[in-house]
Amino acid sequence: MKKISVLGSTGSIGTQTMDIVRNKNDLKITALAAGSNIELLEQQIREFRPNLVCVFQEDKAVLLRENIRDLDTLVVTGMEGLIECATESEAETVVTAMVGMIGILPTIEGIKAGKNIALANKETLVTAGHIIMPLVKEKKVSLLPVDSEHSAIFQALNGEDKRYARQIILTASGGPFRGRELSELKNITPGDALKHPNWAMGQKITIDSATMINKGLEVMEAAWLFDINIDQIKVVIHPQSIIHSMVEYVDGSVLAQLGVPDMKLPIQYALFYPRRMEMPEGERVDFVKLKQLTFEEPDMNTFFGLKLGYEAGRIGGSMPTVYNAANEWAVARFLEGKIRFLDIPTLIGEAMSHHKLIQNPTLNEILNTEIETYDFVRGFDRAGLL
Amino acid sequence: MKKISVLGSTGSIGTQTMDIVRNKNDLKITALAAGSNIELLEQQIREFRPNLVCVFQEDKAVLLRENIRDLDTLVVTGMEGLIECATESEAETVVTAMVGMIGILPTIEGIKAGKNIALANKETLVTAGHIIMPLVKEKKVSLLPVDSEHSAIFQALNGEDKRYARQIILTASGGPFRGRELSELKNITPGDALKHPNWAMGQKITIDSATMINKGLEVMEAAWLFDINIDQIKVVIHPQSIIHSMVEYVDGSVLAQLGVPDMKLPIQYALFYPRRMEMPEGERVDFVKLKQLTFEEPDMNTFFGLKLGYEAGRIGGSMPTVYNAANEWAVARFLEGKIRFLDIPTLIGEAMSHHKLIQNPTLNEILNTEIETYDFVRGFDRAGLL
Repeated sequence: MKKISVLGSTGSIGTQTMDIVRNKNDLKITALAAGSNIELLEQQIREFRPNLVCVFQEDKAVLLRENIRDLDTLVVTGMEGLIECATESEAETVVTAMVGMIGILPTIEGIKAGKNIALANKETLVTAGHIIMPLVKEKKVSLLPVDSEHSAIFQALNGEDKRYARQIILTASGGPFRGRELSELKNITPGDALKHPNWAMGQKITIDSATMINKGLEVMEAAWLFDINIDQIKVVIHPQSIIHSMVEYVDGSVLAQLGVPDMKLPIQYALFYPRRMEMPEGERVDFVKLKQLTFEEPDMNTFFGLKLGYEAGRIGGSMPTVYNAANEWAVARFLEGKIRFLDIPTLIGEAMSHHKLIQNPTLNEILNTEIETYDFVRGFDRAGLL
Repeated sequence: MKKISVLGSTGSIGTQTMDIVRNKNDLKITALAAGSNIELLEQQIREFRPNLVCVFQEDKAVLLRENIRDLDTLVVTGMEGLIECATESEAETVVTAMVGMIGILPTIEGIKAGKNIALANKETLVTAGHIIMPLVKEKKVSLLPVDSEHSAIFQALNGEDKRYARQIILTASGGPFRGRELSELKNITPGDALKHPNWAMGQKITIDSATMINKGLEVMEAAWLFDINIDQIKVVIHPQSIIHSMVEYVDGSVLAQLGVPDMKLPIQYALFYPRRMEMPEGERVDFVKLKQLTFEEPDMNTFFGLKLGYEAGRIGGSMPTVYNAANEWAVARFLEGKIRFLDIPTLIGEAMSHHKLIQNPTLNEILNTEIETYDFVRGFDRAGLL
């Protein structure tokens, strides 16, 4: 019986993690954390009976306490509560499925408490990889990627000596606007951008896929996870999302991991590794039905957010935090209809140009960089420059 | 410095093995064996200075002894000589690159002498897998596949627990006659059949690719190598020969090994495993240039030799020997222009129907089955039934 704490349990990865727990006898939930969706969280509490839950929003936590009076589940709140969930004494593995830089502190505290991490919160490594990775080593915990691409790379490196890896080939669906020209992206609405061709995901990551900024974040995440140079990571467009990523070795051999586009597979893999469990449900890859897998070069001019991702990764230090924070802010505004689609990468570029680099930022400096970046892009907006 | 003995050094795999030895400082040839091509063998002797060489044909061995009087290389002959090469005292690894069932005895003796085997002679496992595999285990030697498909499967299983493998997906180019109807294959000439779309290989295996009987042999070889049921091995047509084969796991994850179609890659892999050496030369896979990878169902009615391969594998015992021997005989006659293309699988089917199965044949019974099969198909021919 493996005991897990799930941070971000009401989001897309969170609910799919719950589906897996529901179908496997050997998982037990000891803690759950959500932002504000207390209706779904209450259902999850009644079904899975965790020891501890966190609701990030204080007012919602108060409401939830009322609603589950009949249970003896402890309800905590805020960042402190989130950290309590990440360090809950019985949990062996913490699934970090929240969106955004809010994941950094709980992840660090979880590792310090000796918890294994099933990492779905890529912002953690993008912004604080230089703090997280040495800590993982020091505390001898495992950090397993939940992202389908990184899970694929992990599997393609399994049993191999990493020194022989020549490059990582990170596949990208290209999102809903693959093949379009820059000029065609001007009037994209949130509705257009939320239609991902292959994956059912949360809103933030779906927009990030449409801008390909998600791929920029993934390049940086991969560099930390697999201790490889940014320029040894190559993005290739693969619209079918069947090959989840590949590793090319020095001898010309390429190992690839393939599967249907279903997040339950990498979630399950991260929870049970090195065991492989029967797939939860649904179809397997049928190559004959599939007929073909195709590949294209990414268009870095149209999707210049990806190019900026490489730049941020190469520069390193506090720059990935700027890239990520500017994007987080911009995506939220885009979804509210306040800015346009191409303003997202434009704002990131502006924020990066304006930023004074900190080479090896402390956790505090990272969090300050985030705030400063928010301030900068907000000012940019107010100035009516967008 | 790794010391190797190469059996079949003048053939396609043999000469490519020599290319690798030429380019890597840490390989040394201690023994070479060839059938009759003493001109090329002499060149190899002068270049690589083995301790021992075997020429299978007695008269050619006599000639070679004359020609290399100036050297102190010992020249042996016949099956006895071949076995001497397979057990040469300094050799650590024996590359079995001869064509046909002639490989069985030297492979067995090599294993008994504690040699690791780089197996390019698939007939060995197809006909005597039940003798070879327990012997490999008993003698604690390694047996690494040189076939590109089996090397791919080996790599896709690397670092994984084999119990989680659900099926092997063995890719096949489909050969030069992919997509044709049975009736269109009646008048195929050896010249037509020797034009393989992707691979430069020896004549026998090129014809076997055209009939897809090669894939039948590979299915049986894979079953022995990876200790998996015949019906857990699925053949999928993949005309580009870039995905060399795949393993599907119980969780729906598929691991694939890809590379350009170049036999040097699996040869080198088998010689240096677990190390990966820089690729010898030539291109790497470029997915963007490649554009697409396609897949089709194999046509078991047109290529009924493949269907017979599954049948022979399911029946087991001495039946795979019948399948292989009938094919060896028929391919030689087809290349001589004595029988037609479709007579190859037809003869195999007739030989299989006529054979009295031996469940767990001894080595002698396997070799007798080979002779009896030759006699049967020869009689078939004489009777003018073809």
